[in-house]
Amino acid sequence: MPLLAVTPSPPYVAVIFTSVRASDDPPGYAAAAGAMEQLASEQPGYLGFESAHTASGTGISVSYWQDEDAARAWKLVSDHLAVQRAGQERWYLDYQVRVAVVVRDYGPPG
Amino acid sequence: MPLLAVTPSPPYVAVIFTSVRASDDPPGYAAAAGAMEQLASEQPGYLGFESAHTASGTGISVSYWQDEDAARAWKLVSDHLAVQRAGQERWYLDYQVRVAVVVRDYGPPG
Repeated sequence: MPLLAVTPSPPYVAVIFTSVRASDDPPGYAAAAGAMEQLASEQPGYLGFESAHTASGTGISVSYWQDEDAARAWKLVSDHLAVQRAGQERWYLDYQVRVAVVVRDYGPPG
Repeated sequence: MPLLAVTPSPPYVAVIFTSVRASDDPPGYAAAAGAMEQLASEQPGYLGFESAHTASGTGISVSYWQDEDAARAWKLVSDHLAVQRAGQERWYLDYQVRVAVVVRDYGPPG
């Protein structure tokens, strides 16, 4: 069974990455995505990660961070890697990143 | 090509719903999810919706709202429907809802 991220009581930060991939499984994508997730999990302030992709190409990944500083530091690390890859890989037709402060959360009742 | 939600400049509100479904395509799920998305889009303050599901059962849906009041009003509407369905359908093994204020966003450069 897949697991949801276990996060502390709010507030904490969610970085929502939504994307449209150029193809269902672009060459090199899965390996790179796994490496990025592993790298994220080693950063200070990392709380968790959730990801889902439809066959039609829409993807949503959410990473959770202790605070905005931790999310911003991860952006610097991941931008650096993305620049190194620029021109080599064109996985996304479009994407959007949203940085958001979680103010309340809830799961199934009791 | 699937489309990403088009949202205004921050701040606005994201409601992140992550779930683990009991099976890949539970009976009645797709129709109900479509109806809920349609209903959401008719609520005051609705900005957009994005959703992705993996075959393994993890799903992430994000709805975007003008402000917290709009998100809270939608929760009341959707809770009411969920209560009506309780006991009839058991689609989720687990889920988590996170209400978050988007403070910044960005897409591809240029």
